[in-house]
Amino acid sequence: MKKITIAAILGITALSLSTGAFAQIKPEEQIKFRKAAYSFASWNMVKIKANLEGTYDAAQVKAAANAIASVAGSGIGALFSPGTEKSIGAEKTFAKPELFQKTADVAKLAGDFAAASNELVAAADSGDAAAVKAAHGKVGASCKACHDQFKLR
Amino acid sequence: MKKITIAAILGITALSLSTGAFAQIKPEEQIKFRKAAYSFASWNMVKIKANLEGTYDAAQVKAAANAIASVAGSGIGALFSPGTEKSIGAEKTFAKPELFQKTADVAKLAGDFAAASNELVAAADSGDAAAVKAAHGKVGASCKACHDQFKLR
Repeated sequence: MKKITIAAILGITALSLSTGAFAQIKPEEQIKFRKAAYSFASWNMVKIKANLEGTYDAAQVKAAANAIASVAGSGIGALFSPGTEKSIGAEKTFAKPELFQKTADVAKLAGDFAAASNELVAAADSGDAAAVKAAHGKVGASCKACHDQFKLR
Repeated sequence: MKKITIAAILGITALSLSTGAFAQIKPEEQIKFRKAAYSFASWNMVKIKANLEGTYDAAQVKAAANAIASVAGSGIGALFSPGTEKSIGAEKTFAKPELFQKTADVAKLAGDFAAASNELVAAADSGDAAAVKAAHGKVGASCKACHDQFKLR
């Protein structure tokens, strides 16, 4: 799977993605990529928390905030296509079935995540640790709100 | 694992990360997070390729380029601490043992990835698809160069 992906990136194979940016991502890859995106955001949340509790490194906090916002702005909804509701082989999903039905609720939560992430970027750019702490809390709350409703564990 | 991470983010647990931003990330989480980071970059590389081969959406390409650069700038080297050389339980790593020894070579490759990613962001910001294509190729080549030397598959 990994080799195919890298080959696709490099244009080594004849794989065509000409019908749209997301159209040709296989269901099992969608599950892998969406989990990876949230996991990458999670690591960056942990980094910011560590900065708030330890030595505050403004550059690291800015980079981490930008990373979280890049996840929120990555169009991750495209990785929840029909056919990705259940685990596929080794690619396990913990999304509840309702996530694929209550699309308006999910869109609202995704919007909250994006808005909070943008606040976090602004706070990180300002270098004001108290503002970063508040915005970090909002982002965390937006993560939790979605997990509580739509994640199995 | 996931619940612990989210709890840590939200400050629900007493988990302390006070000794530094990266110090307290468990080895198995380091493996998970580093794979997630590269996987997130990979998805964004695929998105840009699709834009180059299909309809070019400048906003999506900019977001994807920024996402890739956010991975390159995330301090991912901190997720290759001693104790993460081999798979830990369900967290499989495909890093070759040499990666943990040839640190100067790895640093050079990581620098190439970061430089190419920054070029990609600049190209995406310019909206010049030809420049994006060239920079995307450079980023892909930097991925491949590291995989060829330091990845088992």
